[in-house]
Amino acid sequence: MSVKPEAAGNGRGRTPYLSHFTEFSERRARFVESFRDTKIDAFLVTALPNVRYLSGFSGSNAALLLTADRSLLFTDPRYQTQAPQECDCDIKIAKKALLIEAPIWVNRLAVKRLGFERTRISFEAYDFLKRNAKTFQLVPVGDAIEQLRMVKSATEIATIRKAVELNSAAFDHALRTFKRGMTEVDLAGKIEYRMRRLGADGPSFETIVAAGPRTALPHAHPTARAIKGDELLLVDMGATVAGYASDMTRTMGVGRLSTKARRMYRAVLESQLVAIDSIKAGIASSTVDRSARTVLKKYGLDEWFIHSTGHGLGLEIHEGPRIGKKEARRLEAGMAITVEPGVYLEDFGGVRIEDTVIVTKNGCEVLTPTSKDLIIL
Amino acid sequence: MSVKPEAAGNGRGRTPYLSHFTEFSERRARFVESFRDTKIDAFLVTALPNVRYLSGFSGSNAALLLTADRSLLFTDPRYQTQAPQECDCDIKIAKKALLIEAPIWVNRLAVKRLGFERTRISFEAYDFLKRNAKTFQLVPVGDAIEQLRMVKSATEIATIRKAVELNSAAFDHALRTFKRGMTEVDLAGKIEYRMRRLGADGPSFETIVAAGPRTALPHAHPTARAIKGDELLLVDMGATVAGYASDMTRTMGVGRLSTKARRMYRAVLESQLVAIDSIKAGIASSTVDRSARTVLKKYGLDEWFIHSTGHGLGLEIHEGPRIGKKEARRLEAGMAITVEPGVYLEDFGGVRIEDTVIVTKNGCEVLTPTSKDLIIL
Repeated sequence: MSVKPEAAGNGRGRTPYLSHFTEFSERRARFVESFRDTKIDAFLVTALPNVRYLSGFSGSNAALLLTADRSLLFTDPRYQTQAPQECDCDIKIAKKALLIEAPIWVNRLAVKRLGFERTRISFEAYDFLKRNAKTFQLVPVGDAIEQLRMVKSATEIATIRKAVELNSAAFDHALRTFKRGMTEVDLAGKIEYRMRRLGADGPSFETIVAAGPRTALPHAHPTARAIKGDELLLVDMGATVAGYASDMTRTMGVGRLSTKARRMYRAVLESQLVAIDSIKAGIASSTVDRSARTVLKKYGLDEWFIHSTGHGLGLEIHEGPRIGKKEARRLEAGMAITVEPGVYLEDFGGVRIEDTVIVTKNGCEVLTPTSKDLIIL
Repeated sequence: MSVKPEAAGNGRGRTPYLSHFTEFSERRARFVESFRDTKIDAFLVTALPNVRYLSGFSGSNAALLLTADRSLLFTDPRYQTQAPQECDCDIKIAKKALLIEAPIWVNRLAVKRLGFERTRISFEAYDFLKRNAKTFQLVPVGDAIEQLRMVKSATEIATIRKAVELNSAAFDHALRTFKRGMTEVDLAGKIEYRMRRLGADGPSFETIVAAGPRTALPHAHPTARAIKGDELLLVDMGATVAGYASDMTRTMGVGRLSTKARRMYRAVLESQLVAIDSIKAGIASSTVDRSARTVLKKYGLDEWFIHSTGHGLGLEIHEGPRIGKKEARRLEAGMAITVEPGVYLEDFGGVRIEDTVIVTKNGCEVLTPTSKDLIIL
């Protein structure tokens, strides 16, 4: 999918899977239907991923005002060329702050009850809107757009698949250049360079490369530490393609691994496979999390699994649903989630294995093509 | 400076410039002094760059509760190893959401009036705090921490200098590999790879590489478009080092440039140099902006300069002060700002030239070492 029309005709010759303008207007129509539940007659979207989801606009400053029959996109003069290329809303190039210009239109369109994103807007923006809301009432609305975003369309799944495949290809390329003595930042740099070479917008998050005892830090920044022999090596990486994220973790051995490290790897792999097997539309997210934990308990390692089993991903690297202990929400076909159990022993090391999967009616499809056999470099 | 103690002893053998724990506790003391102005007896810091500024902690989930004599850092179990390495606050590893655990301590410490960051906290977080604020009052506070952050310490300036120099070195390296026919993403990828190789945490923002008419998009994402002959090439890039950002733009010619493009370059360069000359402690930010615009007006190009002249930078790529038309705020010695006038002609191309500078008592120091002579590739 090319959500950026400027990228079409760039010589790569890909045909967009469908007219993206149609998909965006359908998303807006679906969202506007939800106005009845909250008795609002307009909604001001300010979170950029939500603006992009509903309009296609990918710029860094935007707000979207939606009523039953109008879609107004506010942005600033930097985007006067890009905005009409990317989206078919009425584009308003604002000279002042968007939160000054948008309420003028709220008045002009005679809106009575204006919904806003309670989880996304800052206190300041809310306070500002409230002081300017003379003719309309402000209605905090939960994660209505995020709820829509959880279940992906065919176009979105195709894009996530591309992001996942590109990410795995970048991993393969980068590993081929691996040499002992290379530093963590060297390897992270090679990975991100490969992502771009292969056509990614960029990494979906800062690539994690950790070696030796540093693998026990679940979110280690890569350092100038050399990757030596006989230790664990953990790589957690994602590429963004046409706005959509992918996410994968592999833990490897550099040289000989201890029996303890190999046992940890086996435990985490079994945990991850059992969790994946448990996935299908209709089951609670917490069931998937429990499946992963039960296996680690058998190995006496559940205490060291200190995060949730996974998360949704799409236009953001972390979105719903969360796959955690207390998440009663049921999975639906079309959800894109990660499955990533991990075990972390301080001063020793950690193992995490993560794939991106799509929930289906009777199970799930693991998009990540990279092998989960223990790689020894 | 190594604000990340885990990076010490990594073989690069740099001595931290001072005990960073001391610098952080001094910053907290300075901030706590401001409690008198707002009549608060505690402050809950939730914006991560502000948490990092006041504590040194660089993790992705944290809140800092400050009173006159206590500094409590809340984070989650993923950071139980990293947090005490990076900061000397009382560390509370929260099992639940930080906004559930922190108010328990607000009660326990008998706080009566709790300040919070009005520009940074979400409406949802505010609403949640408010519903849990049974024994204390919530006081919205503006950008008190951001105000402190605008004037950099010697340690911070040394780190920004490193970030700027590393960024220029990455630019030089990447340009040496330039070949006609290379794509925008190729060049962006090479730049970011070099940053990492040279020791950056990563890019401070998505590297902009735009060629030909795409240079007229001030925030173009790099595409798979080939960089051919006889056109403009714009690169806007920044490297983050030990948490601190740098920012630089250079516009170049690939092959022969038209007289019009060369004239644009001359105009923007003159505008940038005059703006830099106008900088010194005590003058208003708007004066710098006006200096840049006046030169472009002389060339009849001011109408196409559609953004502000610059911005502060530090732990974030965009922080105060803003260097714009209406900014009355006076510059102070120690502020780190960018100076980046630009001119953008739709369907033709754009030119922007940007350096990172430090404001001094009698002028400024341009940190960026890269030449501003028009480079022809």
